[in-house]
Amino acid sequence: MAEYVFGVDVGGTTVKMGLFTTGGEVVDKWEIPTRTENGGENILPDIASAVKVKCEEKSIAASDVAGIGIGVPGPVDAKGIVHKCVNLNWDEFNVNDRLGQLTGMKVKAGNDANVAALGEMWKGGGQGFDSTVMVTLGTGVGGGIIMDGEMLTGSCGAGGEIGHIHVQDGEPEACGCGNYGCLEQYASATGIVRLAKRELAKGTKSSLNAETCTAKDVWDAVKAGDEAALAVAETFGEYLGKGLAAVAGVVNPQAFVIGGGVSKAGEVILPYIEKNYMPAVFHASRDVKFVLATLGNDAGIFGAAKLVL
Amino acid sequence: MAEYVFGVDVGGTTVKMGLFTTGGEVVDKWEIPTRTENGGENILPDIASAVKVKCEEKSIAASDVAGIGIGVPGPVDAKGIVHKCVNLNWDEFNVNDRLGQLTGMKVKAGNDANVAALGEMWKGGGQGFDSTVMVTLGTGVGGGIIMDGEMLTGSCGAGGEIGHIHVQDGEPEACGCGNYGCLEQYASATGIVRLAKRELAKGTKSSLNAETCTAKDVWDAVKAGDEAALAVAETFGEYLGKGLAAVAGVVNPQAFVIGGGVSKAGEVILPYIEKNYMPAVFHASRDVKFVLATLGNDAGIFGAAKLVL
Repeated sequence: MAEYVFGVDVGGTTVKMGLFTTGGEVVDKWEIPTRTENGGENILPDIASAVKVKCEEKSIAASDVAGIGIGVPGPVDAKGIVHKCVNLNWDEFNVNDRLGQLTGMKVKAGNDANVAALGEMWKGGGQGFDSTVMVTLGTGVGGGIIMDGEMLTGSCGAGGEIGHIHVQDGEPEACGCGNYGCLEQYASATGIVRLAKRELAKGTKSSLNAETCTAKDVWDAVKAGDEAALAVAETFGEYLGKGLAAVAGVVNPQAFVIGGGVSKAGEVILPYIEKNYMPAVFHASRDVKFVLATLGNDAGIFGAAKLVL
Repeated sequence: MAEYVFGVDVGGTTVKMGLFTTGGEVVDKWEIPTRTENGGENILPDIASAVKVKCEEKSIAASDVAGIGIGVPGPVDAKGIVHKCVNLNWDEFNVNDRLGQLTGMKVKAGNDANVAALGEMWKGGGQGFDSTVMVTLGTGVGGGIIMDGEMLTGSCGAGGEIGHIHVQDGEPEACGCGNYGCLEQYASATGIVRLAKRELAKGTKSSLNAETCTAKDVWDAVKAGDEAALAVAETFGEYLGKGLAAVAGVVNPQAFVIGGGVSKAGEVILPYIEKNYMPAVFHASRDVKFVLATLGNDAGIFGAAKLVL
């Protein structure tokens, strides 16, 4: 019976690596650089080397390892085939097979947002649930859906792309995806700053500086009762609450797990979401729980490890 | 090797029954009344009797039957437990077990909307796909989601309740669910009539009669170039197109299968949906196909049969 499992989270600049017991305790975690040159051809060999070195260091035999789970920033199908990971310069190939050949271990790959959702459900804010939607409020808005313990990948790996749900007609600025009026434009860290600038431009009384304010500044100001920041929080909650009500209408989860940089503001963000969610959602999804993610940047390595188990 | 399978679709007034070959050919189909009195206690025994009589009539041994699939109008969990089917006066019990005891056959129950989606994918408009969303535009708007060939039921059986996605703020009339501004209020047959009445009240030129017009009349008038009907079709398409774009952002299907009474208007409805869907959807879901359902009221018995296979 294997006692260990590796969880790997591949980002555009750093690969986060974790060695876990199969019970989910962290034995070690570390990072290696992501070498994206030459079509990212070194990324998997670098990971294989790091796994080998760690096994030697800890005197772990290959037979003691259940496998390697790996989250990658792009669509991954059920067989482990990636279809262009632009941040890694990867084209199309089977990650499970290639990393498996390099290590002799069982490998299972998944999309990083879905994998993070799995991690939060296993050992983070989503513990105790088996159907959750993780909402990552960072530079953008990401989503990962787990139904009955399984990741919902969608037909071409774009399941859970909830940041690009259309929530506003007539938005004059384009989203990074090219559309206008995506949820991400109002509920991400970037979106919150955008909303703050619009509020300040109206002349609303505030301690915020339109030139320099960050999403963190906005939430700090909300806690201090700042008028403009409170208005921003209302608008943020209106878009996100209604957006998540639509998500619940489609997949009917038990809980939403809210993570990403914006979630570091803490519990203060939840009532703004919930009060707009409740009147907009179908009654069967009114009991859904809103919880904060707890694993931070480690959600990916936890979820990747869980992917193999 | 079993050669036959029963597909049963339980409605509030009639139970539709089908005997199929395991290859999906209809051997026979018929209806029996739904006896909802006394907590609906006769419904499953009536179905069991009908199955027994049909087997005798066709000289089919129980060992030749793969099982009985059954769609019911309410949430059903993965084990076959129903949690109150209000139209049948059913409380909470396990349909798989009870109908299994009555017949000695393998039984699998599912929610009727999800089961219809499965039927359309097996033998109807969704053939050739394995991840589809069926949208039933009838008195209300129902939805059924199939991902990788499996029904998405949601944590309490309310997965795919897309008719109650909130799409309009400030709607003065309540939806049947108690909320205001649900997709169903604009895209169902009832919703289309409502939109037509509003358009006629504005004084828009039309051959439609505000007192008597049906959704069919509206689409007939669209085909004839009626000004008010064309305006209604635009509004219908705007709500439904954007709503389905949100659905695609969540589950990323290969195809939407459009069924229900409204879909009988034919291909004319699709461009109104698609032209509003495209600008609102995330690019990964722009290749999704819009197809019309083809099985009509038989989708439920086909899907129920497929559920067992």
